[in-house]
Amino acid sequence: MTAFDYDLFVIGGGSGGVRSGRLAASLGKKVAIAEEFRYGGTCVIRGCVPKKLYVYASQYSEHFEDAAGFGWTVGERRFDWKALVAAKEQEITRLEGLYRKGLANAGAEILDTRAELVGPHEVRLTASGKTVTAERIVIAVGGHPTPHEALPGHELCISSNEAFDLPELPQSILIAGGGYIAVEFANIFHGLGVETTLIYRGKEILSRFDHDLRRGLHAAMEEKGIRILCEDIIQSVSVGPDGRRTARTMKHGELVSDQVMLALGRVPNTQGLGLEKAGVKTNERGAIMVDAYSRTTAPGIYALGDVTDRVQLTPVAIHEAMCFIETEYKDNPTSPDHDLIATAVFSQPEIGTIGLTEEEAARTFEELEVYLAEFRPMKATLSGRKEKMIMKLVVNATDRKVVGAHILGHDAGEMAQLLGISLKAGCTKDDFDRTMAVHPTAAEELVTMYQPTYRVRKGERVA
Amino acid sequence: MTAFDYDLFVIGGGSGGVRSGRLAASLGKKVAIAEEFRYGGTCVIRGCVPKKLYVYASQYSEHFEDAAGFGWTVGERRFDWKALVAAKEQEITRLEGLYRKGLANAGAEILDTRAELVGPHEVRLTASGKTVTAERIVIAVGGHPTPHEALPGHELCISSNEAFDLPELPQSILIAGGGYIAVEFANIFHGLGVETTLIYRGKEILSRFDHDLRRGLHAAMEEKGIRILCEDIIQSVSVGPDGRRTARTMKHGELVSDQVMLALGRVPNTQGLGLEKAGVKTNERGAIMVDAYSRTTAPGIYALGDVTDRVQLTPVAIHEAMCFIETEYKDNPTSPDHDLIATAVFSQPEIGTIGLTEEEAARTFEELEVYLAEFRPMKATLSGRKEKMIMKLVVNATDRKVVGAHILGHDAGEMAQLLGISLKAGCTKDDFDRTMAVHPTAAEELVTMYQPTYRVRKGERVA
Repeated sequence: MTAFDYDLFVIGGGSGGVRSGRLAASLGKKVAIAEEFRYGGTCVIRGCVPKKLYVYASQYSEHFEDAAGFGWTVGERRFDWKALVAAKEQEITRLEGLYRKGLANAGAEILDTRAELVGPHEVRLTASGKTVTAERIVIAVGGHPTPHEALPGHELCISSNEAFDLPELPQSILIAGGGYIAVEFANIFHGLGVETTLIYRGKEILSRFDHDLRRGLHAAMEEKGIRILCEDIIQSVSVGPDGRRTARTMKHGELVSDQVMLALGRVPNTQGLGLEKAGVKTNERGAIMVDAYSRTTAPGIYALGDVTDRVQLTPVAIHEAMCFIETEYKDNPTSPDHDLIATAVFSQPEIGTIGLTEEEAARTFEELEVYLAEFRPMKATLSGRKEKMIMKLVVNATDRKVVGAHILGHDAGEMAQLLGISLKAGCTKDDFDRTMAVHPTAAEELVTMYQPTYRVRKGERVA
Repeated sequence: MTAFDYDLFVIGGGSGGVRSGRLAASLGKKVAIAEEFRYGGTCVIRGCVPKKLYVYASQYSEHFEDAAGFGWTVGERRFDWKALVAAKEQEITRLEGLYRKGLANAGAEILDTRAELVGPHEVRLTASGKTVTAERIVIAVGGHPTPHEALPGHELCISSNEAFDLPELPQSILIAGGGYIAVEFANIFHGLGVETTLIYRGKEILSRFDHDLRRGLHAAMEEKGIRILCEDIIQSVSVGPDGRRTARTMKHGELVSDQVMLALGRVPNTQGLGLEKAGVKTNERGAIMVDAYSRTTAPGIYALGDVTDRVQLTPVAIHEAMCFIETEYKDNPTSPDHDLIATAVFSQPEIGTIGLTEEEAARTFEELEVYLAEFRPMKATLSGRKEKMIMKLVVNATDRKVVGAHILGHDAGEMAQLLGISLKAGCTKDDFDRTMAVHPTAAEELVTMYQPTYRVRKGERVA
């Protein structure tokens, strides 16, 4: 057909790359995909999947404690970190195999090599040194945790990449950052028995989330025994003869711990990719610039997922891949829809959220109705655990559309997923009110808040 | 104002009675409410609330087992039934107090007595023998488990009423019935270590639920070790010198167990209530007949909740109470809406469901798209537990409206609650498809089933 070796060459075997490669191959296109590390990408190998497995592992300490309130006496328990790491490894290896199998079954050529651009339609495979050509190239190489090289002693610190595979579980850890990765790992390590401190330069953890959730999660984490130091930063890290790390902080003096983890953001994997040779432009953060159809500045070259720094989430990368396929191979130009994306933070308690925070909504709409419930979950009545669920709906008073829904507590992520359908469909508060409760659930609170807790008019809270 | 002692007299201190009494009192009406047992009704005292607490208690045995796959070694554990009963008792006593407090704060007069009708506007309080009059009377006396008096030895059996407060946890139990109460208790007792057998005359447990959920739950329960005997019945029950019960069955011979529990349906508490004296008619099942506004055949007398045998659910009784208040005291005639009620079965795995089963939808619509996913939940990959989640969407092919959603697995009840909003609002499959996944959750499956698993045309399954 064409003068190229391949119809499509995909660089990067993560969520976006694999989906686009697999779908294109299943449409009969000649496809190759190259991955230098492990198929599955950040999500499967050192992101969502191992993270959630570790969250499950870390929840058992609460289960063991809570059981007493329900009549159970639980004998001594021990946690074996190496067993968890090995079990995780087995599972992600299984998933990696499924990714490869999916590609192979669709007919894609699977390459285990780094690939770099050497020209507009040309890719060099670094393992063999061979150069191949492709009509279209998808760059889906993802990102990595920022190493924060400006920090003296940063090389003594770990990132989320290493955290999953530490040779030993530390007795104590200091985690720098206030984003969801920092918060999730703080809860995981705490649940596994590690003395955990979080240090964050901002006023409150989880900026960009609704303030009630931020406040509620902060309080819940401290109540459990996680130390949170806001408005402070690490200025340097050093190691002592015992191998322990000493972090000098701006406000809290020296903090000594077994490990220091940096979770200060992620940067696109664009270095040394040969982008300039192919005419692919990046922005000031090193992310590949794309248009509404994931097209880069170079004809025939597309970029998907984290490397574009649009929304760094697995389902978004997959969605972008599916839109690319529709547009380029199905004659159905489809632009990725980045509006109203529900997300979860797998902290403990969990966060699930969709739509606008109260603050954002207050800037957008003339008048808001805010429905806020804070209550003890049923399980906690017998376990005695001091925890609160928070549920919040933000409603545009003019048309009564629910423009934001925010949940803190068990299963918040599952709830956010399904609230996503309602918000995406433009459901109003009347649709919520019309819905019969399911009793006893936590979610029934979301359909039984009949009166606004307060209103916000022109940005000001009114009674 | 009136020549009556009260504006409103409420018979029954359950969900429907308390809500109507409290709301009417808070509107300034002179209200009395009478309850012969305990305030809170079936839901709080011997239904939803203690049931869910016992479900939580019974889940710990799975937590203890599952922990091993995540690196935990858990020492010997013991379960103390009496401790659970005492903790439950404390909690429902607390809730009972809240119900009383709510009524008292609203200004309702709280009577601890049975009340019976003696005339159109007249009620006799059996504790004092006093007769009072009221302009309006609400009957919300609920129901009770059928004692199944036709069964020889029925007096040797317990019902859900007694199950919560057994002096000792039996080593084995035989539960008769295939409805949600039978199924929930079978899972509770099994989880607490009781050798459990379910016997049900029907072909498959949980008639009226979608067949995939029925099949899936049946398989999951058997996999755990619950014995299920379908198409069989108990013909008689006798007790031996050791106190154990022997149930003679039609097909499975004699089954010996410590307890036999009958969960064969519930009947309205209308006996001896004086309905005929007041002109209140009942149907052939003894349920009070009401019109679309919960009005009985006697002017000024209303009936709410289980005693009317419309939909026997707590939120429905509360909804009927709120509609009664709107209609009678707020000049806003409001008929209860019994359409599209989401429900949960707190079996293990759980069921959450809303809308039409595939069978019902196939009778209603010309053509269906059925989306069915059966998968291993993420937690089970490490726990090694053999369990499957089932998710099913039934879509009317003509307008693409989602007319049924059925889930088996963890948090299915929470999910059904929120799917309820989407179905009530008339969301289409396109609304589901448009929704971005939240990863990793179970619910994301519900928004990523892009192709129908099969279609049903004129009631026949087609490819």
